[in-house]
Amino acid sequence: MHTGPSLLALAFSLLAVTAASPALAQDAAPAAAADVSQSSQAAPKYQTIASADSPDKVLHVDVMLSGDGNLSYQVTRNGQVIVNPSPLGLILANAPKFDRYFALDKAETTSHDDTWEQPWGERRYVRNHYNELRVDVVQKTWDDRKMTVVFRIYDDGLGFRYEFPDQPQLHKLEIMDELTEFAIADPATAWWDVAGEWNREEYLYNKTPLNEVSEAQTPMTIRTDKGLYISFHEAALVDYAAYWLRRVDGQRLKTRLAPSAMGAPVVRDAPFPTPWRTMEITDSAAGLYNSSDLILNLNEPNKLGDVSWVKPYKYVGIWWGMHLNKWTWEAGPRHGATTKNTEDYIDFAAKNGFRGVLVEGWNKGWEDWFGKGWNFSFTESYPDFDLPAISAYGLKKGVHLVGHNETSGNVANYEPQMAAGFAQYEKYGVDSVKTGYVADAGGARVKAADGEIRYTWNDSQEMVRHYLLNVTTAAKYHIAIDTHEPIKDTGLRRTYPNWVSREGQRGMEYNAWGDPQNPPEHEANLVFTRMLSGPMDFTPGILSLQGQGKPIPSTQAKQLALYVVLYSPIQMAADLPENYAKYPKPFQFIKDVPVDWDQSIALNGEPGDFATIVRKDRHSDNWYLGSVTDENERSLDVPLTFLEPGRTYKAQIYRDGPNAGMTGDARFDIVIEEKTVTAGDTLTLRMAPGGGEAIRFVAQKKK
Amino acid sequence: MHTGPSLLALAFSLLAVTAASPALAQDAAPAAAADVSQSSQAAPKYQTIASADSPDKVLHVDVMLSGDGNLSYQVTRNGQVIVNPSPLGLILANAPKFDRYFALDKAETTSHDDTWEQPWGERRYVRNHYNELRVDVVQKTWDDRKMTVVFRIYDDGLGFRYEFPDQPQLHKLEIMDELTEFAIADPATAWWDVAGEWNREEYLYNKTPLNEVSEAQTPMTIRTDKGLYISFHEAALVDYAAYWLRRVDGQRLKTRLAPSAMGAPVVRDAPFPTPWRTMEITDSAAGLYNSSDLILNLNEPNKLGDVSWVKPYKYVGIWWGMHLNKWTWEAGPRHGATTKNTEDYIDFAAKNGFRGVLVEGWNKGWEDWFGKGWNFSFTESYPDFDLPAISAYGLKKGVHLVGHNETSGNVANYEPQMAAGFAQYEKYGVDSVKTGYVADAGGARVKAADGEIRYTWNDSQEMVRHYLLNVTTAAKYHIAIDTHEPIKDTGLRRTYPNWVSREGQRGMEYNAWGDPQNPPEHEANLVFTRMLSGPMDFTPGILSLQGQGKPIPSTQAKQLALYVVLYSPIQMAADLPENYAKYPKPFQFIKDVPVDWDQSIALNGEPGDFATIVRKDRHSDNWYLGSVTDENERSLDVPLTFLEPGRTYKAQIYRDGPNAGMTGDARFDIVIEEKTVTAGDTLTLRMAPGGGEAIRFVAQKKK
Repeated sequence: MHTGPSLLALAFSLLAVTAASPALAQDAAPAAAADVSQSSQAAPKYQTIASADSPDKVLHVDVMLSGDGNLSYQVTRNGQVIVNPSPLGLILANAPKFDRYFALDKAETTSHDDTWEQPWGERRYVRNHYNELRVDVVQKTWDDRKMTVVFRIYDDGLGFRYEFPDQPQLHKLEIMDELTEFAIADPATAWWDVAGEWNREEYLYNKTPLNEVSEAQTPMTIRTDKGLYISFHEAALVDYAAYWLRRVDGQRLKTRLAPSAMGAPVVRDAPFPTPWRTMEITDSAAGLYNSSDLILNLNEPNKLGDVSWVKPYKYVGIWWGMHLNKWTWEAGPRHGATTKNTEDYIDFAAKNGFRGVLVEGWNKGWEDWFGKGWNFSFTESYPDFDLPAISAYGLKKGVHLVGHNETSGNVANYEPQMAAGFAQYEKYGVDSVKTGYVADAGGARVKAADGEIRYTWNDSQEMVRHYLLNVTTAAKYHIAIDTHEPIKDTGLRRTYPNWVSREGQRGMEYNAWGDPQNPPEHEANLVFTRMLSGPMDFTPGILSLQGQGKPIPSTQAKQLALYVVLYSPIQMAADLPENYAKYPKPFQFIKDVPVDWDQSIALNGEPGDFATIVRKDRHSDNWYLGSVTDENERSLDVPLTFLEPGRTYKAQIYRDGPNAGMTGDARFDIVIEEKTVTAGDTLTLRMAPGGGEAIRFVAQKKK
Repeated sequence: MHTGPSLLALAFSLLAVTAASPALAQDAAPAAAADVSQSSQAAPKYQTIASADSPDKVLHVDVMLSGDGNLSYQVTRNGQVIVNPSPLGLILANAPKFDRYFALDKAETTSHDDTWEQPWGERRYVRNHYNELRVDVVQKTWDDRKMTVVFRIYDDGLGFRYEFPDQPQLHKLEIMDELTEFAIADPATAWWDVAGEWNREEYLYNKTPLNEVSEAQTPMTIRTDKGLYISFHEAALVDYAAYWLRRVDGQRLKTRLAPSAMGAPVVRDAPFPTPWRTMEITDSAAGLYNSSDLILNLNEPNKLGDVSWVKPYKYVGIWWGMHLNKWTWEAGPRHGATTKNTEDYIDFAAKNGFRGVLVEGWNKGWEDWFGKGWNFSFTESYPDFDLPAISAYGLKKGVHLVGHNETSGNVANYEPQMAAGFAQYEKYGVDSVKTGYVADAGGARVKAADGEIRYTWNDSQEMVRHYLLNVTTAAKYHIAIDTHEPIKDTGLRRTYPNWVSREGQRGMEYNAWGDPQNPPEHEANLVFTRMLSGPMDFTPGILSLQGQGKPIPSTQAKQLALYVVLYSPIQMAADLPENYAKYPKPFQFIKDVPVDWDQSIALNGEPGDFATIVRKDRHSDNWYLGSVTDENERSLDVPLTFLEPGRTYKAQIYRDGPNAGMTGDARFDIVIEEKTVTAGDTLTLRMAPGGGEAIRFVAQKKK
């Protein structure tokens, strides 16, 4: 059974023909009737119904209708099409699709420019300068259902989202999937990691042609053959499923909503907006990092009010010892989280200026934590861990315990205990907690509305809700959250500034026992992919460069550089205290480096090759530089133009020595030296294979 | 939070180390704890717990445990690994995953060899010769849950499935996804079409390297760089979601279950088996076609008993006229399905020996059929269509109406009317019905258990149920079903022989108005992809070679060849009667060619290039040959060894003329000639660009 082309022809005759793009050739399809769509494949015709530019007219967005009233958008940059016409819309379980029969109701363009202050962050002041295009469309065939597509267009990126008004004919939306696509115009190289499986945050990155991507987690980064860098992600993921970036064919990418074990991936009552689908678009990889305020800007302002209780800090802790198999999480003869051990760490922290001591394995339930147990208590300590005594001991010395809530993904067990756990922590002066969701037993274990247990994805709507519930509950107890095995970061730290960091990447512990360990290119991959989403608790600083029988393929200087390169307002000095005792001189940088910044600038870099970032301390005039390379030796000239003009700085340089390398003793070849520099100078960073360089620029008194 | 490597080490120490394959390097992952799995990436160790060979020891399957009791399988062919160790298991919404903690309970190997007779088909007798390996495993960690994996291993392919016994700790399974993978050992080229969208059956095929596949419908065909051909598909898809073949990364393919608008993709009470996951594995493309009994063999025998009422036939009908925009489906001045028009078609059918006349647009509801209407009646005719009179008129001449049920995907509207529609048809001598599911308005529209309407995928469990309900209901009224916009064919025609065909590919109508039309390579793609799943109602035979202002890029000889190349027990002579009147000589082949076969053999071919198939009539000693090429001229030597030795045949040859081609008048350059041949002869087929050749070998009396 087929519809003839007559309706199609009619539709076309009603449209002013404005553009024909081969990109939608395979692609009018999902929207149009099977047959009609095919007939429109070779010569789709688009009518632009609304357009807007970015403030400096770098980017331009067209919203278009085609075929049977199919809605799409196109992005041009400096006059060149970079995203071919790409479908907009979504599929519902409880009503016909939002995919066609659209007509323009109203289009409106507005401009916005303000600057807001972060309580903590990569930079203190963030400018939010965009033009907004709101396009209200109506589906006449389906009871005049309305939908709005909103674009916010910056010079270095854009975000768009759907908004659904409450309307009697569609109050409740059960969203099965989105039809949103990104039809990339030029061939490209992609850096991506596989989405769609369990615990997929902690994986290595693939580098392939874009047309070998299967389904990727976001952020995903591409470099087009014309040299443009694009990062795909989302902002303000609230009460919705995360999306995965599925390649359909060619260079056509499509959002896929993470499934739910409850039913449709998203169930919402209108009115509501979806998260923002975002693209950062720049001429350089460094530009991507510098433009990443996009994600923050697309989030709502702080909803927590006074957040002076959220403290950036550095910490040490009972953690690396478990990864070296020296201690255990569970109680026993090698239990790590004992009162004595913790107090030793508190002494070490106090002596070296670290505010926090993380203790994993302090609470009951670790005996079978990744098997069948899951019965973690979030309030009861093991008998050999005296929480009141330890916290008092620490506070006396100005050291705060960093709380730890490993859930094993058993949210059904955690949520009822969450408030009590936070209340107890607050009582003992613990003002930040690291959570954990090793959803090993079958996905996150959540209680459904019917009281039954369901096993679901960390990226699902129900888990998105849980992660935010965790953060907002913690806020009531003045506790900051560092989420491990997290939902991806979509900039909610702007709205909830107590969501300080995430361990949502393949971190340092893989250097202890990973097979393979993290390759030397890993950190330079992270900077231009995952870190574009926000802070990253990577737990750097293993100056001993030694895992379980596995040497770590890094120089000491690179370990220091990571404190500047990888941003997090909480940073761990992850090595054992006795190891730091062996290397007091490089350790000095770890003690000196701040964690809260007035400004951050990526100076250079390529994904998986190298990255150089400088940051200015928020509480002094000092600047810090971190640079890392991959397995290749590399020399980089760095003009110091970021420094205050006319001012003199004492550069404390921690660099790879002449014989440095990523194996054996060469890893420990570090040169520590001082130079006096000004903004007019250029430094040459020479990094060994697996190497890096860290510099502290101490501002000298103005003359 | 991380588990150390100690548990992993323990697991390894319990296993006899038997194999290490880089294929699972990215891949122990989905099963194991995030960290543990990473640590096992580089050196996975597999313990083979059960093995079996195919009858002639061509294929060999190992079932293995690794890591934390992860289950996987490996396939070797003549001693070479062709599928690296690949995970087995599935993810549940209502219980922990079936992904690890497996231990062997029992393994058993049995042999099977029988031959069964088809009521109709590509061949009369089908041999079913395999070795079966049953592996019962138990998950001790999860209450001793049991699962069985069953492999049936043929010399030219294999199938495997999961079986779930009823057990108190897991009576109801809500299956979110399967973990089943196919980690292909060698680089390969893939012929595939995109899955996961709406109405995706009617699309052109991509030909790309295997590592550019995103998510494909099955059957999908690959050719490895070592020259092996593999077709991936499934058999016996009953009360389960169809699977899509998603590439994870590299050459690693994974099943993904089609989503459901009801909840988990599959909800079943144990005991039950899953469909068979199948691979045909041969040295040639032709071999794939010749081995495709695998799919039938993995289905249950006929459950309908006497099916002598299921008649293979050829038909004409009121169809192409709509695609030429000469007639309309809906009533009106150009209504196609009028009494007069139908009686003319009956006259034409009777005169030319066609049993069937299809009439589309006979029933009420077509006015808005792909918009909001969907209110098709399946019993009420338009006033200008007198069903009782027409059917009586036809039966008097030995011609049966072919019924037509277009549902527009509105299953909720169709199911309550289905039986009444079939009963009426049976009353009027209609013994076959073509259905249609242009699920244009938002997916198939089905009624959920709660009475609410849901919009869902044709590949979903609920639609799999519907399609079979349609067929089994029809059987009660002795009606055969030809499904358009179908669920994929998984061989259920063996079990329900009234499921005679499907229009589940991009058919001839795209040559009427498609943009692009079907390219000349299309049919040679179909033979080695979609047609491996079963009969295909392609509606060939457009001797006029003319669509709506669009010449069809085919020679006349190719149109004839399609009747042999593309198998269906019901075949349409799709052109207008007045067009056949213009070309009586080539039309003769369409009148002569049978539709039911004693034997079928693919002689040669390459996907998307060419294909030659010979078939022996089931009701005579005559053979038929069809050969098609793509846009390239081609000469093929065909030894006639398939003919009965020592017997003489009159070969009635319909071949491309010396000036034939795929444009203009060249398309009509056909040579019709006769030769006398024996099995010892070799014919050279010379096909023009867009050409083909059809031969009828009339067996002469034995001397």
